[in-house]
Amino acid sequence: MAAEFDTVWFLSDYGLADEFVGVVKAVIHAFAPSAKVIDLTHQIAPYDTRAGALTLARCIQYLGPGVVVGIVDPGVGSDRRAVAVEVGEDANGAESAESRRVLIGPDNGLLAPAVAMAGGARRAVALTNRDYQLDAPGPTFAGRDIFGPAAAHLCAGVDLADLGEEVDPLSLIPGVVPLPRQEDERVAGEVLWVDRFGNAQLNVGPEELASMGDHLTLRCHEQTRSAALVGSYSDLKAGQIGLMVDAYGLMAVVQQRRSAAEELGLVAGDSVTVEAAV
Amino acid sequence: MAAEFDTVWFLSDYGLADEFVGVVKAVIHAFAPSAKVIDLTHQIAPYDTRAGALTLARCIQYLGPGVVVGIVDPGVGSDRRAVAVEVGEDANGAESAESRRVLIGPDNGLLAPAVAMAGGARRAVALTNRDYQLDAPGPTFAGRDIFGPAAAHLCAGVDLADLGEEVDPLSLIPGVVPLPRQEDERVAGEVLWVDRFGNAQLNVGPEELASMGDHLTLRCHEQTRSAALVGSYSDLKAGQIGLMVDAYGLMAVVQQRRSAAEELGLVAGDSVTVEAAV
Amino acid sequence: MAAEFDTVWFLSDYGLADEFVGVVKAVIHAFAPSAKVIDLTHQIAPYDTRAGALTLARCIQYLGPGVVVGIVDPGVGSDRRAVAVEVGEDANGAESAESRRVLIGPDNGLLAPAVAMAGGARRAVALTNRDYQLDAPGPTFAGRDIFGPAAAHLCAGVDLADLGEEVDPLSLIPGVVPLPRQEDERVAGEVLWVDRFGNAQLNVGPEELASMGDHLTLRCHEQTRSAALVGSYSDLKAGQIGLMVDAYGLMAVVQQRRSAAEELGLVAGDSVTVEAAV
Repeated sequence: MAAEFDTVWFLSDYGLADEFVGVVKAVIHAFAPSAKVIDLTHQIAPYDTRAGALTLARCIQYLGPGVVVGIVDPGVGSDRRAVAVEVGEDANGAESAESRRVLIGPDNGLLAPAVAMAGGARRAVALTNRDYQLDAPGPTFAGRDIFGPAAAHLCAGVDLADLGEEVDPLSLIPGVVPLPRQEDERVAGEVLWVDRFGNAQLNVGPEELASMGDHLTLRCHEQTRSAALVGSYSDLKAGQIGLMVDAYGLMAVVQQRRSAAEELGLVAGDSVTVEAAV
Repeated sequence: MAAEFDTVWFLSDYGLADEFVGVVKAVIHAFAPSAKVIDLTHQIAPYDTRAGALTLARCIQYLGPGVVVGIVDPGVGSDRRAVAVEVGEDANGAESAESRRVLIGPDNGLLAPAVAMAGGARRAVALTNRDYQLDAPGPTFAGRDIFGPAAAHLCAGVDLADLGEEVDPLSLIPGVVPLPRQEDERVAGEVLWVDRFGNAQLNVGPEELASMGDHLTLRCHEQTRSAALVGSYSDLKAGQIGLMVDAYGLMAVVQQRRSAAEELGLVAGDSVTVEAAV
Repeated sequence: MAAEFDTVWFLSDYGLADEFVGVVKAVIHAFAPSAKVIDLTHQIAPYDTRAGALTLARCIQYLGPGVVVGIVDPGVGSDRRAVAVEVGEDANGAESAESRRVLIGPDNGLLAPAVAMAGGARRAVALTNRDYQLDAPGPTFAGRDIFGPAAAHLCAGVDLADLGEEVDPLSLIPGVVPLPRQEDERVAGEVLWVDRFGNAQLNVGPEELASMGDHLTLRCHEQTRSAALVGSYSDLKAGQIGLMVDAYGLMAVVQQRRSAAEELGLVAGDSVTVEAAV
């Protein structure tokens, strides 16, 4: 049953200025030289487990079989658990080799939304077996000493159960993904993510705006702005605010070739309400 | 004839803070697990097709056979075409497996200078065959849904012609590379690129300064500065401005261990004239 | 004896905005297509050989057999030597295939601390054989023209001795790693490195603080601050300054989930003294 993995997907808040990412890859390479490591991003803001969790959740459906290492770990060195969580089932709920993945990281909610998106945890272990860890002078670099080695050993054929003691998947810290509220004629949502181009993804799906028509009113930070429901950037005039289904199927506040987030002063976590224009 | 490619070169304006690059790699990995993806850069300024085009042109001669994916795509989701352009011929103009490459990206001029440097387009297709694309909830992530899959399918052995309908290479949007002007005794050029170290590459070759001697006068932004024609940074005194043949064979405005661009306030696109010092 | 290498570790001050790193990888790929290149970091501050040297020294013990390319090269194009330095011996000083590595870079002290950590230079050559270099229009991109090709050719089976003339390892420029001073009851140290999270690593080991107890006084920039000797971030209260053994076995000035370096205004090179609190 124990299919060997050959791909490691890697997300962290390590940044690229220090050598952290390179050293984790060196450790993975030492134990699993034929594994391929694919970076998702390492520029999650330091300690921002929410942003890390949402990023993993956006990615997960595009990741094939393999090991996903996620590290945003403000509690490193404390008694927070380090865990490996197995997901993957077919449409009937049976285990599926095609979709079998193991997510590795701190048990602080970082992995939870992606685990949920992938059908939920089948099995989880706490990474307590020190035989599969590096000895470290200090406890601050769990990527190098615990998470990276665990991923590599899975790629090298070690069984998940050997990495530590099994834990109840229900005991894993849940992720917190904010839900939009329907308030009378409007939807009260929240900015989940501002991307490089200044598109502000909301936690609002297109179905929630379906009855509002194409002329919308957006409220945020005591501003009231008109917004057009559009299908593409090119449907917008210069300077116009749009609401558009983004690449992940959620509504995003956008402008054409400009940063809507900058225009409106939006950052992740901000409240935004949407209603039909009068 | 259809040589399979095993290398994908990847340039974009996606940045590294979001997961865009990682997700495109995930998609390539899904369809072509043995392909090697080599990043050129992902920090082209958002929407800056000119900078992206010049960067691809600087790189192209160093890229072996393979697929080049270039994404700087302000018109994503509009009716701009997505294209794949085959280049590669030997010195006699015959097709050469050694130099066969396919460049993939939006048809907005981004690929054009690199295509020209590689000997011109032999064949081009519009990426219209949706069998080789991902279904997407929204049209904004063509790297994931169109360009990445196209590159991967080429690596997996799909023929270029199967990716969409053939288009006339002459119909591709040309790139705009500014040419210097010879004005009496001086050359009026333009800054093509400021690199990390503050070297400002001009669109001026060494032959255009050949008759001016080693003591030059540089004019830019209403400044007039002396500059020495030198062969190496180490020929410059502290604080001195130099003109030097750079690693790509063009003249660059430089200083020793300092940013000449910062000293002179130069950014890409600025005008610079060079003449012999009196 | 000539074991072929298949891994290249790569550190530079090239940054990721320009295509420098990608082009070096393209050149390595051309000569050694099966070599795996693993980035350590490319965001060493421009020309900061000291930071580059310390980063390589922190990494080296985690790097398996392979070629290490380090490029922080303010003297590029001058008469500074380009070198390849072989290291690797077992506990008895005999050559060991397990630990055999070649470090490649400018001879300016950048490689020296890592070479020392790896047991010292067994052999060194100056990269003078132009048969294993690229012809270049200008002398400024030694990564592409000299260092990258040298690494690739080693991976392709070329013997170190063929890359150029052997030089006396004792003639290599030494690295400068500052040592702490014991002054009466206190240790006068220096900040070696501030990482992304604001932890400030000192050149002070835990043994030097062993007799001071857990309540310490820290002096830097005319500030006097209390600091607690702790084993983990989670032992600190909000806002409290800590001294902790970091992941590399040195003392670091830390705070919990905040940047200690920002709090205290510390950057690499700053003086810090530590003594028992009265």
